Amino acid sequence: MAIHRHFVLTLILASFISATNALADSTKSVILIIGDGMDDHQITIARNYLVGSRGTLLLDKMPFRGVAQVLTIDEVSGLPVYVADSANTATALATGQVTSRGRIATSAGKDLDLPTIVELANRKGYRTGLVTTSSITDATPASFAAHVSSRYCESPAAMVDIVKYGIELGSCIDDLKANGGLGSISEQLAKSNVHLLLGGGRQYFTANNEAGQSSAMKLAAENGFTIINSWKEIDHLHPNDKVLGLFAEEHLPVKLKGEAGRSAEAPKKSMLNHINNYFGEVTLPSPMNCIANSNFMDTPTLKEMSKMAIKQLSYENRDGFFLMIESASIDKQSHERKPCGSVGELDQLIDAVSVALEYAKENPDTLILVTSDHTHAAQIVPDKSLFSEYPVPVYTPGKIARIFTKEGGILAINYATSNFEAEEHTGANVPIFGNNVAVSEKLPTYMLQADVFSFMARYLELN
Amino acid sequence: MAIHRHFVLTLILASFISATNALADSTKSVILIIGDGMDDHQITIARNYLVGSRGTLLLDKMPFRGVAQVLTIDEVSGLPVYVADSANTATALATGQVTSRGRIATSAGKDLDLPTIVELANRKGYRTGLVTTSSITDATPASFAAHVSSRYCESPAAMVDIVKYGIELGSCIDDLKANGGLGSISEQLAKSNVHLLLGGGRQYFTANNEAGQSSAMKLAAENGFTIINSWKEIDHLHPNDKVLGLFAEEHLPVKLKGEAGRSAEAPKKSMLNHINNYFGEVTLPSPMNCIANSNFMDTPTLKEMSKMAIKQLSYENRDGFFLMIESASIDKQSHERKPCGSVGELDQLIDAVSVALEYAKENPDTLILVTSDHTHAAQIVPDKSLFSEYPVPVYTPGKIARIFTKEGGILAINYATSNFEAEEHTGANVPIFGNNVAVSEKLPTYMLQADVFSFMARYLELN
Repeated sequence: MAIHRHFVLTLILASFISATNALADSTKSVILIIGDGMDDHQITIARNYLVGSRGTLLLDKMPFRGVAQVLTIDEVSGLPVYVADSANTATALATGQVTSRGRIATSAGKDLDLPTIVELANRKGYRTGLVTTSSITDATPASFAAHVSSRYCESPAAMVDIVKYGIELGSCIDDLKANGGLGSISEQLAKSNVHLLLGGGRQYFTANNEAGQSSAMKLAAENGFTIINSWKEIDHLHPNDKVLGLFAEEHLPVKLKGEAGRSAEAPKKSMLNHINNYFGEVTLPSPMNCIANSNFMDTPTLKEMSKMAIKQLSYENRDGFFLMIESASIDKQSHERKPCGSVGELDQLIDAVSVALEYAKENPDTLILVTSDHTHAAQIVPDKSLFSEYPVPVYTPGKIARIFTKEGGILAINYATSNFEAEEHTGANVPIFGNNVAVSEKLPTYMLQADVFSFMARYLELN
Repeated sequence: MAIHRHFVLTLILASFISATNALADSTKSVILIIGDGMDDHQITIARNYLVGSRGTLLLDKMPFRGVAQVLTIDEVSGLPVYVADSANTATALATGQVTSRGRIATSAGKDLDLPTIVELANRKGYRTGLVTTSSITDATPASFAAHVSSRYCESPAAMVDIVKYGIELGSCIDDLKANGGLGSISEQLAKSNVHLLLGGGRQYFTANNEAGQSSAMKLAAENGFTIINSWKEIDHLHPNDKVLGLFAEEHLPVKLKGEAGRSAEAPKKSMLNHINNYFGEVTLPSPMNCIANSNFMDTPTLKEMSKMAIKQLSYENRDGFFLMIESASIDKQSHERKPCGSVGELDQLIDAVSVALEYAKENPDTLILVTSDHTHAAQIVPDKSLFSEYPVPVYTPGKIARIFTKEGGILAINYATSNFEAEEHTGANVPIFGNNVAVSEKLPTYMLQADVFSFMARYLELN
C-alpha cells in the first residue's frame, strides 16, 4: 500500500510539473536573424578566414539548414525579376508578399500597405523589437514596421524628389501626410508600437517634418519612446521602457577592414596587355591582412544590442516576443568590394546567433531562424588560376582582393558584377538555418522566401 | 479458442514476413549522383528556367539537404588552397582524402595510391558502376577506379609531355608501366573490377599502349568486358555482362544550347566608352532562347544510361551495388559560358535522380546522395541594374547571357572569373541532397566533402 500511495503521489506531482511546464512552454517567441547579402560564398569566406577551411562555424552546427527561393516582381508588368533588393526581400520576410524592388511593405502596382509580422504580433500582445547595424530606417528593418513606396523615403526631408549621390531617385508623394499618407519611414517608426528599435540613422529622426516644425525624434518621445544616443545610457533604462536607440548618424561602423583601408582592386595591366588581352603582363594586387576597424569601438556591437534587446523584450513577459536582428553591412561592404568588412559583419551575426541560442536554452519555445535576403557579388576564385600553365596573362575581370588567412593560405575574392562604383546583388536561392524548434515544427528544407513569414506567423498563432 | 489460434497463426505469419523483409533489407546499395559544378546559382538558374521561379525541382523535394565544404591542398606545401578542380574533389568523394588539384586518387606530395570506394566495395562483393556524360576517363569517374598523378594521363599515348591545346601540361612518368606504374587511366579502367562503365572517351581506349602493340580496348576485352559503341547494342547484352560502353570519342553531346550556338557575350561599348568607363553607351547582348541540341539525339541520355546501369547492377544481386552517376557538362558548359547547356545538363541530372528514386521505392535500403564537386563561375545578375537610375553606362564586366524564360522574364547570367578562353571554378561550399536513408542514417547537414566518402563506406560496412 505504501508503494501504491507513493506511486499516486508521484503521478500527481508529475502532472503538476507537466502543467507548470505547459504554462512556461506557452511563451512562444521568434528571433529572426538576417545576414544581409549572406550567401554561401560569404559564409565560406567567413569560415575559411575565421575558423579555417576545416573549421566549423556556429551556423554549421545549427540543427536545421535549408534554402529559400527569393522572388521579385516587376512593378508594372508583375512579371518575375530574377534579382532582388533588400526592400522587396525584407517585405517578403515581414509580410509574406512578393513585391517589386525598392518597396517597403507595400504591394507592387497597387501600392497597398501590407500588414507586417511586427504589426500582427503587436496586436496579439507580443512585444516586438528591431535591431540592426544599419540605419534603423534602412530597407530591411523598415519593411517590418513601415509602409512606403520607396526605400529612400527615410525622413520627412526626403519624400519628394529624393536626391542621393546627386541623382534623383524617385518620390513618395502619395505617402506624404499632407496627401493622407503615413509619412516617412522615421516618422512611421516613431509612431509605431514596436517596443525596441536599435541601430543607426539619427539624421533621419532629427530632420524637421513636412511642416518644418517637428521631427520624428519628437514624435517618438510623444509616443512613449525613451531615446538614447549612446550605449552607456542603457544603464538608466527601465526594463519596461520602450526604447529608440540611435547610435550613429547613418550606419554603425564595421568590425574589420583591409589594411590601409584597401578593398578589392583591378589587376594591373602592362602597356602591351592594354593592346591585346593575351600579350604583356598582368599583376594581381598584393595579398593583405584584415585588421580591426578602430571606429568600431565607439558604438555597440550587434552582440551587445541583441543581448540587451532580448533582455528588454523578455523581462517579466509571459506573452512572448518577435525580434528581428540584422547584420546589415555584410551586404554594404560587399557593394564596396571590401571582403574583410563582410567577414567581420558575418562574425557579428554569429555572435548574435550565439546570444539567441543562449536565450533559447532556458526558453525552449523560442524559434530561431537565421537567413539572408539575397545573394551577393563576392566570389572565391582561384588565387592560382586553373589555367596557369598557359603562357598568357590569365586574370579575373572586375576587381580582386587577396587575403592572408591564419592557416597560411591566400583567399582570393573577386567582385565582377558591375563596372559602377558599387557591385550588384545576385539571384541564387539563399541559405536558412534554424534551431531545434525549426526542426520540431517541420520547417521544409526548401521554401519560398515569403513562406518564412507564414512559418513564423503560424508558430506565433497570428492568423 | 478459434480466435486464439487465428492470433497465433497471424503472429507466425507476421514473423515470417518480417524475416523475409529482413533478408531483402540487407541488400544495401549506394547511388552517388554528381552534378559537376552544380552550385546554388546553377540550381536556381535551372529552377527559374525549367519550372519557373515559383516552381519546385525534384532536388527541392528531397528529404535531406545540406552542404559540404570542399578542401584542396597545395601539392608541395600542403597548405590550404581555396578553389578545387574536379580531380581533387572526386578524389575526396571517392577516397575520403584531401589532395592537390589535378590528382586522381593519389596523395599530394607523396603520390601514394588511395583506395577508392569502388575498389573497397568490389572487395566486399558489391557490384560497382560508373556512368557519366563525359569521357569515362575524365577526372570525376577516373578518381573512383584509377590512380595517376595527373588527370590528363587518360590514354597510353598521353603519359609523357602531355600536350593539350598546344600547351605542355605535365607528365605521369612514374605511372608508366615501364616504370612499375599502373599505366594510364583508360588502361586502369580496362583492367579494373568495375562491372559497368558507361560514357564517352572512345579515343582513349583505341590509342596504342606504351609498346605500341595493344590498346586499352583490347585489355578490357581480355578482362571480360563486353564493349559496346552504340546504344542499340544494349539489346544484345546479358544482365550479368561486365560492360564498357563508349558512346562518343570524347564527351557526350549536351541537351540544350543557345540559339544560333550563342554563349555569353561581352557588352558592346561605344567609342566614347572605350575612352572612359562612364562616357558613351554600352549595349548588352540581345536576349535569346535555349533550343534543343540536335546532336543530342545520337547518343544515350543520362537517364537511359542510369536506368540501364541500375538494371544491370541489381539483376539477381543480393549483395548490393555502388553506382556513381555524373552529369559532367554542367561544369563544361559553364567553362564555355553556355548557360543553356548547363541548364540542360542539370535537367539530365534530375532525370537520373528520378530513376534512382524510382529504384529506391522498391529497394528501400538504397542510399541516394546527390552533390556537386565544386562551385562555378555563372552568377545570376540583375537584367536591369540596381543602379539603373544613374545616368552613366552600368554594365557587367566579363561576359553576359540574357535568356528568355517561359514565365516571361529575362534571366541574366554573367561569367566573370577569367579573361581566358575558359571560366574558373569558384570556392563556396557545395549543396548535397539525400533520400530518406540519408535522413535515417543521420547524415549531418554540414560536413567536409571527404566525409561523404566515410558516410557511404560506413553505410556499406566497408571498413
